[in-house]
Amino acid sequence: MANYFSSNFTLGILGGGQLGKMMLYETRKYDIKTAVLDPSAEAPCRIACDSFEQGDLMDFDTVYGFGKKVDLLTFEIENVNVEALKKLESEGKKVYPSSETLQKIQNKGIQKQFYKDHRIPTAAFRVFQNKNLLNEAIVRKELHFPFVWKSCTGGYDGKGVSIVRDAEDIIPLPDVECLAEKLIPFKNELAVIVARSPSGEVKTYPVVEMEFHPEANQVEYVICPARIDEAVAKKAREVAKNVSEAFKHVGLLAVEMFQTNEDEIIVNEVAPRPHNSGHHTIESSYTNQFEQHIRAILDLPLGKTESKVGGIMVNLVGAEGHTGEVVYKNIEKIMAMEGVTPHIYGKKETRPFRKMGHVTIVNEDISKARKIAAEVKKTIHVISKNDQ
Amino acid sequence: MANYFSSNFTLGILGGGQLGKMMLYETRKYDIKTAVLDPSAEAPCRIACDSFEQGDLMDFDTVYGFGKKVDLLTFEIENVNVEALKKLESEGKKVYPSSETLQKIQNKGIQKQFYKDHRIPTAAFRVFQNKNLLNEAIVRKELHFPFVWKSCTGGYDGKGVSIVRDAEDIIPLPDVECLAEKLIPFKNELAVIVARSPSGEVKTYPVVEMEFHPEANQVEYVICPARIDEAVAKKAREVAKNVSEAFKHVGLLAVEMFQTNEDEIIVNEVAPRPHNSGHHTIESSYTNQFEQHIRAILDLPLGKTESKVGGIMVNLVGAEGHTGEVVYKNIEKIMAMEGVTPHIYGKKETRPFRKMGHVTIVNEDISKARKIAAEVKKTIHVISKNDQ
Repeated sequence: MANYFSSNFTLGILGGGQLGKMMLYETRKYDIKTAVLDPSAEAPCRIACDSFEQGDLMDFDTVYGFGKKVDLLTFEIENVNVEALKKLESEGKKVYPSSETLQKIQNKGIQKQFYKDHRIPTAAFRVFQNKNLLNEAIVRKELHFPFVWKSCTGGYDGKGVSIVRDAEDIIPLPDVECLAEKLIPFKNELAVIVARSPSGEVKTYPVVEMEFHPEANQVEYVICPARIDEAVAKKAREVAKNVSEAFKHVGLLAVEMFQTNEDEIIVNEVAPRPHNSGHHTIESSYTNQFEQHIRAILDLPLGKTESKVGGIMVNLVGAEGHTGEVVYKNIEKIMAMEGVTPHIYGKKETRPFRKMGHVTIVNEDISKARKIAAEVKKTIHVISKNDQ
Repeated sequence: MANYFSSNFTLGILGGGQLGKMMLYETRKYDIKTAVLDPSAEAPCRIACDSFEQGDLMDFDTVYGFGKKVDLLTFEIENVNVEALKKLESEGKKVYPSSETLQKIQNKGIQKQFYKDHRIPTAAFRVFQNKNLLNEAIVRKELHFPFVWKSCTGGYDGKGVSIVRDAEDIIPLPDVECLAEKLIPFKNELAVIVARSPSGEVKTYPVVEMEFHPEANQVEYVICPARIDEAVAKKAREVAKNVSEAFKHVGLLAVEMFQTNEDEIIVNEVAPRPHNSGHHTIESSYTNQFEQHIRAILDLPLGKTESKVGGIMVNLVGAEGHTGEVVYKNIEKIMAMEGVTPHIYGKKETRPFRKMGHVTIVNEDISKARKIAAEVKKTIHVISKNDQ
């Protein structure tokens, strides 16, 4: 085992974005050599890895060729060529999470069916191969308004998801394989990150809660620990553990869930990698999610998942009406607030709602952290230089 | 101020070792561009900075030329060409800590005289230009055994320091400018890191304690908070603040002190940079020392210096009798212990007592952390591959 450290072992990472960059801090801490593949010549990982290769993550030959050169392969993004991963695995290369896990997750229809097959609580659903079949089901009264529409592939960050309340809402939907899900009212959107190693060691992080803007229906704060009953938190961690067990994944699995009005926990979807809902762990946890991912895929003992202090994460997104060279207005003011750490993703240009970074607020008292987080949101503005 | 972030500002760092490497994680977090100068082509910073230059840190032209290319200059090592820094400053370049601070610290004779001039408590001393003058003072009975001998320049990590108990002990000492210091019995060796910004904002970290091996007279554990009376801790932070105030330094100042048997605090020496006694802050503090250094030199608000949890740091040094390609025996065992994080410095070869990394142990209960730290020390062995 110990031969990962200061040796010739090379970890390959597919995707060179922000998640990869944060993962690379941890490989540096352990002195683990890294190689990164990303389509962009300006990928954030470029200057933090040992070797960088520019190439298409969906191209079989590129991914296969890259994989051949490394000792173990992981990814920081789901949209990679699964067939190449399969071939690498068949030749004995370690790929964590496995192509099998990834394939089940890449297609939301398959993912939902997987939950059903494994008796994991999730909203009732039906898969449709195209828009026409979806429309037919409505006409035949097999499917009723309202429902949640999801594109089976390609969606992320809320893209590829729509609430369909009437026939009007169907018109703008693209003609793709999709699923229609029962719209279940919920009290809270929760998430639990589970880490699992090849030896089967499993640890869950405390439950986080997404607090939404009262009008804009956008997540404003990711709060850890979630302000929910102990019994509900326990149930959420149990459900997340069951999902992890069903997938038998290796690495991290971020499980997004709803707490219904009846305090049931139902699974929404999962991501097999470090996740936005775990960014707070850098400042709040004994083991941050990136270190935990590295520990898990290298089959090292998992770190303690408890929190040292309460943590809140706020996304830094481009302000409306601002496009161009970015300025973080008042960043020095938020840095003067207690327990506030900005993380800047280094994108040169801002545009409305573009994710430009995040800010973590930590405090022993989560309600105090919540107040400071509100101050942070009010104070910092991601604007363009020309419109200052 | 905000223009450090995602802009064309470049921070120059003299020295590309481990301290620089840990500093670079923080510049990445803030997306600050960096350039590093180091004599070694294999410097740890090489793959973590934006641009790397190989060159002699003591050479005027090299340091001056490097400084001209960056917007602000700092260092992670004291042995750099001060004249070059002076010239850069005279031309308007920001250098933090300043050449003035560095010059006072580089020579221990000047440093001690500075404490005397500023009424900072320190052991009585005399400076000698060479070994002959030191011997004369002993012959004339102006200097009495025992005393502490220190080389005025070039000493670090305990090198260049000797306890002289009799004439025999003088023989091996080199013929250099030196000082003789009164040997004062002490209860504890303590340290406080002070951060100070150009605007004069000052914050002190909690007091740390060095626990020595009962026989080997080597620091075994750096413990935060120090297990001392609240009144003594308060005094130590006050003294450290006074030292900081006297230097009017910018950046970090690590102040090493003794707690005498009479509970007096006397200053031993200082380092104007991130320091071994602050490594635990990565895991234990609201703001780690490297982030704090960056905040300070960029005149950003200083971060909170309190601890989230208790922290203990153990150095990872090469085992006796082992030279060659390094193996971290049982590293996976210490990683299974609660709250344990190894930091591996990436040196390929081990040799007896070489600093190869450090391990941090954090826990809410410092006495529990201390027990785990003892387990860590007992368990991990930095050995060579051939002698396994």
